[in-house]
Amino acid sequence: MIPFSDSLANAIRQQKTPVLVGLDPRFDQLPQSLVSSIGNAGMSREEHAATAYREYCFGIIDVVAPLVPAVKPQAAFFEELGPAGMLVLAQVIRYAQEKGLLVILDGKRNDIGSTATAYANGILGRKSPWGADALTVSPYLGDDSITPFVEVARRENAGIFVLVKTSNSGGKTFQDLVVTADGQPLYRHVASHVESLATQTVGECGYGAVGAVVGATYPAQLAELRAQMPHTWFLVPGYGAQGGTARDVASAFDVRGMGAIVNNSRGIIQAYRNKPYAERFGESRWQEAIEAATCDMIDQLRSDTPAGCIAGA
Amino acid sequence: MIPFSDSLANAIRQQKTPVLVGLDPRFDQLPQSLVSSIGNAGMSREEHAATAYREYCFGIIDVVAPLVPAVKPQAAFFEELGPAGMLVLAQVIRYAQEKGLLVILDGKRNDIGSTATAYANGILGRKSPWGADALTVSPYLGDDSITPFVEVARRENAGIFVLVKTSNSGGKTFQDLVVTADGQPLYRHVASHVESLATQTVGECGYGAVGAVVGATYPAQLAELRAQMPHTWFLVPGYGAQGGTARDVASAFDVRGMGAIVNNSRGIIQAYRNKPYAERFGESRWQEAIEAATCDMIDQLRSDTPAGCIAGA
Repeated sequence: MIPFSDSLANAIRQQKTPVLVGLDPRFDQLPQSLVSSIGNAGMSREEHAATAYREYCFGIIDVVAPLVPAVKPQAAFFEELGPAGMLVLAQVIRYAQEKGLLVILDGKRNDIGSTATAYANGILGRKSPWGADALTVSPYLGDDSITPFVEVARRENAGIFVLVKTSNSGGKTFQDLVVTADGQPLYRHVASHVESLATQTVGECGYGAVGAVVGATYPAQLAELRAQMPHTWFLVPGYGAQGGTARDVASAFDVRGMGAIVNNSRGIIQAYRNKPYAERFGESRWQEAIEAATCDMIDQLRSDTPAGCIAGA
Repeated sequence: MIPFSDSLANAIRQQKTPVLVGLDPRFDQLPQSLVSSIGNAGMSREEHAATAYREYCFGIIDVVAPLVPAVKPQAAFFEELGPAGMLVLAQVIRYAQEKGLLVILDGKRNDIGSTATAYANGILGRKSPWGADALTVSPYLGDDSITPFVEVARRENAGIFVLVKTSNSGGKTFQDLVVTADGQPLYRHVASHVESLATQTVGECGYGAVGAVVGATYPAQLAELRAQMPHTWFLVPGYGAQGGTARDVASAFDVRGMGAIVNNSRGIIQAYRNKPYAERFGESRWQEAIEAATCDMIDQLRSDTPAGCIAGA
């Protein structure tokens, strides 16, 4: 086993793209043909929806596994269905890995001391019950709430991505508050702490086991944080549906085109509902629509960002 | 159905105590007699542990249901066991409610927009898949990440408790950073936002659907926040094992002895491992040890805090 940071770098080099596909299943937006092909005899509403999520996510994974380095299941949509959804979440994580993908679970988990260790032990590393390669973590509880995740991540060759500057407009409520001590916003304080943890866990690729979530919707801050955090992987949400473009995310990468993964959820996994894919394929050919949208995003990043370096490497 | 804030006030008045029992099962600290009474034929390690957690939590609930208003299952310890643990978490929530308890799920969930709504729909309210009466929420993502939880809580007569000032020593890393605009620490900015949401959702009891987590380990800040947040329920962790005493939490209450619930996890549910209960009951009589520890905490709060008012009400 090699550290997560190097596994991620290798996967990006192999696929020649930093595209991360977000698995955010929503029942009322699934392809109708898929939902109607699933029986619901003897099933609760939640079990039926969870079965549909499994088939949908497996179908997405089948299409994107040859194209991208990693997927990011959003825990909330599985948890919304109760225990039946959580069972499917575990199946989706395993299936993606069987198909060669790295899996970053977007759970934004956080707690203190041995409770944080319990989350980390449960989620991080392929031998754990959930088996994820990495997990998103929320930082409000402070340094001693992040340490347990880092320790388990090191031990299990897994990674974490700490929320630093998020893509939502309300992110500014607390993250942008300017701190008296140094005149810097809160998110830069979180960034300093994350970079220090990344430096302590750096792999051969030059990046550490501790990454940062930095939204695509604030390009200036993305550039500023890239400079401040040279050893920190960036997980960049906000591309596509939330308004971020390939040019907006360009500054997330280092000169080699490395150091960031760019998430797209709805723009890829719901491509069959949106122009131009809906017209080209129709809802029944949803997997082809997803494949085309993934290829288009890969091309956009290659032409508009230094991630293009990877394509030529 | 009545709003969560009033259900909580009623339950506290009925039991004449604000004690909240934390359900934090840890496998290596379970009563040996309980573990050995559970078969493990054909079970995975996780399924066996989850079964033990269910019997342990049911046993705790049987003892504390006649004594306290509410319990707080810690999601992390169930999630640590994978899907098998999550199935038991749902069973524990239902069982506690069947026995008349309110259930606050300690999940510290957080996300943005429709993803936060998915967590809220899944967890909040007795008709939801998890069925919890309230949920803890982490605030780093900002105001628009909290709103979806508030909307679902209102609709479902449920509540949330937002992390404001936590009991761990690392809580100061970010929460205590002083903000330039007004010279106040970050946690007071979070507190202002929470109080404003509480005011918008206030019930007959004078408190709202949006509460705050404020640790017992910083008594001065507890008093200051009580003054700043007159419509906000406090969930106070840090009592007992983390060092908080009944005198430390006294300032969390209003003059009527209302407005706060005081959590104790290890000090109650592991009483059979600690003095003086271990000597008095031995591990095999773990339920009696838990009952005695619960009664002792109730008595301590009655004699050392204005919550004593409730006892005489």
